[in-house]
Amino acid sequence: MTVDAVLDLERRERIGLTEAILCPGKTTKQITDICASVNTERQPLLLTRLSPEAFEALPKDLRASLDYDDLSATAILGKLPPAKGPARIAIVTAGTSDLEAAREAARTLACYGEAVTEIADVGVAGLWRILKRVDDLRAHPVVIVVAGMDGALPSVVGGLVSSAVIAVPKSTGYGAAQKGETALRSALSSCAPGVLVVNIDNGYGAACAALRILGARARSG
Amino acid sequence: MTVDAVLDLERRERIGLTEAILCPGKTTKQITDICASVNTERQPLLLTRLSPEAFEALPKDLRASLDYDDLSATAILGKLPPAKGPARIAIVTAGTSDLEAAREAARTLACYGEAVTEIADVGVAGLWRILKRVDDLRAHPVVIVVAGMDGALPSVVGGLVSSAVIAVPKSTGYGAAQKGETALRSALSSCAPGVLVVNIDNGYGAACAALRILGARARSG
Amino acid sequence: MTVDAVLDLERRERIGLTEAILCPGKTTKQITDICASVNTERQPLLLTRLSPEAFEALPKDLRASLDYDDLSATAILGKLPPAKGPARIAIVTAGTSDLEAAREAARTLACYGEAVTEIADVGVAGLWRILKRVDDLRAHPVVIVVAGMDGALPSVVGGLVSSAVIAVPKSTGYGAAQKGETALRSALSSCAPGVLVVNIDNGYGAACAALRILGARARSG
Amino acid sequence: MTVDAVLDLERRERIGLTEAILCPGKTTKQITDICASVNTERQPLLLTRLSPEAFEALPKDLRASLDYDDLSATAILGKLPPAKGPARIAIVTAGTSDLEAAREAARTLACYGEAVTEIADVGVAGLWRILKRVDDLRAHPVVIVVAGMDGALPSVVGGLVSSAVIAVPKSTGYGAAQKGETALRSALSSCAPGVLVVNIDNGYGAACAALRILGARARSG
Amino acid sequence: MTVDAVLDLERRERIGLTEAILCPGKTTKQITDICASVNTERQPLLLTRLSPEAFEALPKDLRASLDYDDLSATAILGKLPPAKGPARIAIVTAGTSDLEAAREAARTLACYGEAVTEIADVGVAGLWRILKRVDDLRAHPVVIVVAGMDGALPSVVGGLVSSAVIAVPKSTGYGAAQKGETALRSALSSCAPGVLVVNIDNGYGAACAALRILGARARSG
Amino acid sequence: MTVDAVLDLERRERIGLTEAILCPGKTTKQITDICASVNTERQPLLLTRLSPEAFEALPKDLRASLDYDDLSATAILGKLPPAKGPARIAIVTAGTSDLEAAREAARTLACYGEAVTEIADVGVAGLWRILKRVDDLRAHPVVIVVAGMDGALPSVVGGLVSSAVIAVPKSTGYGAAQKGETALRSALSSCAPGVLVVNIDNGYGAACAALRILGARARSG
Amino acid sequence: MTVDAVLDLERRERIGLTEAILCPGKTTKQITDICASVNTERQPLLLTRLSPEAFEALPKDLRASLDYDDLSATAILGKLPPAKGPARIAIVTAGTSDLEAAREAARTLACYGEAVTEIADVGVAGLWRILKRVDDLRAHPVVIVVAGMDGALPSVVGGLVSSAVIAVPKSTGYGAAQKGETALRSALSSCAPGVLVVNIDNGYGAACAALRILGARARSG
Amino acid sequence: MTVDAVLDLERRERIGLTEAILCPGKTTKQITDICASVNTERQPLLLTRLSPEAFEALPKDLRASLDYDDLSATAILGKLPPAKGPARIAIVTAGTSDLEAAREAARTLACYGEAVTEIADVGVAGLWRILKRVDDLRAHPVVIVVAGMDGALPSVVGGLVSSAVIAVPKSTGYGAAQKGETALRSALSSCAPGVLVVNIDNGYGAACAALRILGARARSG
Repeated sequence: MTVDAVLDLERRERIGLTEAILCPGKTTKQITDICASVNTERQPLLLTRLSPEAFEALPKDLRASLDYDDLSATAILGKLPPAKGPARIAIVTAGTSDLEAAREAARTLACYGEAVTEIADVGVAGLWRILKRVDDLRAHPVVIVVAGMDGALPSVVGGLVSSAVIAVPKSTGYGAAQKGETALRSALSSCAPGVLVVNIDNGYGAACAALRILGARARSG
Repeated sequence: MTVDAVLDLERRERIGLTEAILCPGKTTKQITDICASVNTERQPLLLTRLSPEAFEALPKDLRASLDYDDLSATAILGKLPPAKGPARIAIVTAGTSDLEAAREAARTLACYGEAVTEIADVGVAGLWRILKRVDDLRAHPVVIVVAGMDGALPSVVGGLVSSAVIAVPKSTGYGAAQKGETALRSALSSCAPGVLVVNIDNGYGAACAALRILGARARSG
Repeated sequence: MTVDAVLDLERRERIGLTEAILCPGKTTKQITDICASVNTERQPLLLTRLSPEAFEALPKDLRASLDYDDLSATAILGKLPPAKGPARIAIVTAGTSDLEAAREAARTLACYGEAVTEIADVGVAGLWRILKRVDDLRAHPVVIVVAGMDGALPSVVGGLVSSAVIAVPKSTGYGAAQKGETALRSALSSCAPGVLVVNIDNGYGAACAALRILGARARSG
Repeated sequence: MTVDAVLDLERRERIGLTEAILCPGKTTKQITDICASVNTERQPLLLTRLSPEAFEALPKDLRASLDYDDLSATAILGKLPPAKGPARIAIVTAGTSDLEAAREAARTLACYGEAVTEIADVGVAGLWRILKRVDDLRAHPVVIVVAGMDGALPSVVGGLVSSAVIAVPKSTGYGAAQKGETALRSALSSCAPGVLVVNIDNGYGAACAALRILGARARSG
Repeated sequence: MTVDAVLDLERRERIGLTEAILCPGKTTKQITDICASVNTERQPLLLTRLSPEAFEALPKDLRASLDYDDLSATAILGKLPPAKGPARIAIVTAGTSDLEAAREAARTLACYGEAVTEIADVGVAGLWRILKRVDDLRAHPVVIVVAGMDGALPSVVGGLVSSAVIAVPKSTGYGAAQKGETALRSALSSCAPGVLVVNIDNGYGAACAALRILGARARSG
Repeated sequence: MTVDAVLDLERRERIGLTEAILCPGKTTKQITDICASVNTERQPLLLTRLSPEAFEALPKDLRASLDYDDLSATAILGKLPPAKGPARIAIVTAGTSDLEAAREAARTLACYGEAVTEIADVGVAGLWRILKRVDDLRAHPVVIVVAGMDGALPSVVGGLVSSAVIAVPKSTGYGAAQKGETALRSALSSCAPGVLVVNIDNGYGAACAALRILGARARSG
Repeated sequence: MTVDAVLDLERRERIGLTEAILCPGKTTKQITDICASVNTERQPLLLTRLSPEAFEALPKDLRASLDYDDLSATAILGKLPPAKGPARIAIVTAGTSDLEAAREAARTLACYGEAVTEIADVGVAGLWRILKRVDDLRAHPVVIVVAGMDGALPSVVGGLVSSAVIAVPKSTGYGAAQKGETALRSALSSCAPGVLVVNIDNGYGAACAALRILGARARSG
Repeated sequence: MTVDAVLDLERRERIGLTEAILCPGKTTKQITDICASVNTERQPLLLTRLSPEAFEALPKDLRASLDYDDLSATAILGKLPPAKGPARIAIVTAGTSDLEAAREAARTLACYGEAVTEIADVGVAGLWRILKRVDDLRAHPVVIVVAGMDGALPSVVGGLVSSAVIAVPKSTGYGAAQKGETALRSALSSCAPGVLVVNIDNGYGAACAALRILGARARSG
């Protein structure tokens, strides 16, 4: 039985993004091998969904070289690039439990030198909180909105700003919230026109999409 | 084969509400027979989901004695009671296609002498519209909120007023809106505490619940 | 990366309810910090879905100041207000495993000085049990009905009383009960008019809704 | 291309039931050919779900020889056997729109000489209606319960009688009723022990099951 | 807060079945208290879904008085009645993992003095196995068929015997088997007429239904 | 706005199959244009799901050149190749309403010169029918099994023959059959090893798969 | 009963997009009234999902002033602005039936002066078709990909270009395609990082998102 | 209570495949007993889904005689037959986490002397990886494609080769990937004609199907 593993090393040239390592489903050895094989000089390597237990299981020296963040369960191997300038991306969260995905998005963007503005705890049950931040929001060409439960926040934000709005449904809540499925469907059915959606809890995907959008700028400006 | 049909004539004494006729699944003859058998002196009879085609199929003289409204697909047999006083119930709608259920609720309440205030076209994509009406909303002890698609409006209203809030999910939208299922789940998962929910498109049920709430007042005040 | 957390401190003024802390998805430190930051003089702070393990993980002095109940997995920080008078809310349960949500509702109401009457073990498989309590039920303007599996009890209660009826579907049962989904859909499809529904296992939400309803009474009386 | 159609003519010998014709998905010609090929001397042939339009499309002479009932959309070819004695099967319905499936069951049973007692309009929203009929119900060894929407009636009946109880979920209702799916799941999750369930709207299946049960009686008595 | 627990002690008189204790969702103390309060002289008490861990957590003397079976996760308190005669119920299983529910059914029936014939490992992938047992099957007026995965066995059995056939879908399999949901739907859609269905894994319910059916015999014979 | 339509003309060279035209979602003009543009000398063109109404709407001369079959709703443009030899593919159907998909498969195969043996009406409720045909079935290296409702037939066939077995779930049945979804899941969960599955009603896909399998034979023999 | 309709006239100032009219659920009169009330001097009015039947029901003079396109079921009232320059948005479709949503997107963009490049019939079953267009695709900062059935195309495109990729799942296909639900979930689960998704068939939403993205560019360049 | 277990020992003669042991749902003792009872001289015994914990729980001497592989969670008892010749089956995987099912398939095939070619890490996000291997793929008459998340790979492969293509959906991914359900539906809805599908994660089933296909070859060649 021959296995021919082929890393997609030219991905950055092709689509402007390097491959990140989604850790669940990979063994400790597989993660360790990948970390050893990647050249992080030009671009740090991001590991996502690396649970504290999985992190602890890694070899000690690898752990020492990783920048690990347990809130987002991400690790970064290699040096972050300097920030390119003021934040062009705002990350809005409805409640405390939305911070995980927000942080995953922020850490992904940091790998590409993008600063972010985080605007937290602005769920629609206390509407005045988001209304106080509208001018701030409008100053960012891309707004990532993380929201679970009813998923009402992306629609509200989408009606307040002309920026590109990316909804990250969050698997917060219970029962009818169906592990983020309700927030996902709510964002897809948004009454605000042009709200974009990524997978449940997918802060990484939202960040990649933001990079595509801002990268698009350079080429079409 | 013997059929023993038993009308629940004492329902009003027991629960304060008379039986309405849900027309789908009933033949023209069955509807006609029921209308002939009910005494509407003390209380008009409400027929719900009576499509224009089903209405046209009824005998001419019955049609003449019915107050038919095609927007809500309801008909009323018998005289409406006078309004009991100023509106204690507000009915809020997100968009034009939510008016069907709103009207069904309003017509049900009219059968019991309850006036309503309708506040239309205040979907969250244009948030300032609902914000301008907050004081008005707060003046009503019961607020019925009809919303389809993302179903974000009940959460917003639930965060603005202390009134009893009843969400009526509406089968508006397509695809991920899943014929009202998304709006239903969104209302059930509301981040605003204490939002109550009835079945999709069920303006009649929301009205009955409002009557229970207001009736509760009299006994417990 | 800047995080701007904004507590919704004016919520009580706006909607008559203070914010409760839904514990899952929050770290021990976050829960501890919130407890330290809240002024419970006017109103105790309620923590919901705080598992015994999560409770044990809290600092010893915080644990000492919390009134913890493991049946409902709730904790209360601060002094409960005196009961306002005789119970205006009845909480009906079908079986033993429904007591969790019933207790969550009762504890939420206690935070606002509302006494409750609990009527337990009256599932419809032994119908005479609920029938013996009808007069008692009718004396309460609000009836909360907790039921899992087939979710038949809210319909039965809704047909017996004119009170506001709030169904709390319970994630009891297995297989076709689908973790409360069947009880939820059953309550939403109730043949008794005007039955209101909250999310699966959401005793807290039912209590908040009951408070809105009783509050509505005061203002509209 | 060769087609080898094989009728299951020995089914009655094997399982005590003859094959009925489920009409949807069959062409007018196919239905006509089957009717021509079946010997109905010993046992009439039942056609189910034969819509009025499909019935009208049949050849005139076939129509003349069919006993067609539009409420249940069934037709019977051949002479019904005489009733074997007093009704051993009760058919209980919650509301008017449940009569379709009830009639389908009754007509199927008639093909085997079984009389039935129909007890209609006894939905749980008016509980006293079913309570008045308990003694009557108990006199029947098999009780078929047809109910849509919340599907609460089978649980109530199952708690009142020791008879075999067969629930027929009905596709009545809208929204959360999900075309009978909620009534189906509710019956399967019944809190009354030993409630049996057949497919949505399947009055024919309930009747066949009742015949199996009564046949079991004869052999094992 | 007052809790009024009401045991349904007269259930046996009413429906011929005593209440069994479904253990999940009940605390060790609640189970212990119930066992202490029930009089098992006339009828043993059955506890279902009592996991080995939950059994071990019970007080030592209670454990000593229980007849515990870990395959079916059931315990019986009190003396089993003598068998009433030869087996009238056959329990058929498709594979090894179906034995859990089969044993739960057999143990329930033993509480009422009903012997059973178990016919195991006769899944349809090796059709000759069930065909060899047809005469044996036909000798039993009630046949319980436990099957997971594709759930094909109830249809095959339903086409071979005239007995009452009760399908118990089993949560065997993975992926598209959806924890028994596929076997459940398959049994409900059976092409064999009159197959009856209970909830997934519900051996207890199938046994209760069999008792109702056989009980029906006595009264209507 | 420029549209660049690109027909996949080299598909036959690449995968041994030409493109068929799935008619729903295409206008009469689009279908007509495609028929005009395709060279059918080497290979006839197959149109699938062409309803009688859609067929009648085509231009008269196109209709005249099409070989239309209303049972399978397929049309063939161009001359069928001669059959390559005796049937290597058997198509088994459970009931009359499965013939549509069976015929679609047979017509697709005819476009490639493959004869088929159709074995109809062998549903598992009358098991002896399929058992009589086992030797015949075993003589075919590929067996396509079309079955709706409970979808039990593919498992039975898969346990009887060593041939490649392709299940075509059929959208026959109602309620719990869920438009073929149950038959689909049942086939995917088959207890017979190595049963292959295509989409619901997809006789065309089953035929293409059979061609791939038989083609595989030639190359690897 | 008072209805207060409030048009969201300032939406363009707030979010850069004017309100479009989603026609289903609106009466002919409502559509006519809206058309009469809107000033289209600065910006044409777009009507979406206006079926040919609904279009024909409009008053003759309104019809004359509308630019109606039946493929996309859209109508435009008012003069289109001149194109702003070469196409910055590519619209890629997998097959003929994806053209509806593609055209809806293109027409929406035309209302804002954005030209598009349509690249049709490049489904992944004939991979060379999309590969030939990669350079062309890469020249567009935004790529909209419309695909139904398996929804594989967005992942392929997302792996080929660095542009912002917006997937529009299409309700093409049958059975397991579940009216676009499979294509929707497939796009959300894309293995290509940063693919953005809008609702099923929502060409309008994809166009609005593209406008937000291009607008973002201008402000943040 | 008598249990009559019947092993399907003649399965190999009937369908060319021996029975494998699906371990979940079986006790350590049951697995041990089966291993002791099977004669593996002619054919090794395969145990699937045997977790490392379940393997460790087996008796030491049984463990010593098993060839255990933790990646695929399979064990083989008995000697593998020699490979029959060069690989006729290719197994293609999209990513690292797809290797589990691929290895299960390869190990199953090894039990029958079939060599395989594994082609790993060729997900469609880096399309050039699969394109480089097309000639290699085409050399195999059967191609098994394992893919999770969006499940796009089977469609791409199905469009590139004329071989029989068997898709194994993998339960990789999160949220909208729904534990393999999306990959399953995507493969069933493939735009490439004739793609065959087995259950989620069912590498064993894919291997059995491949054996049926290759066996078909011998008989029909």
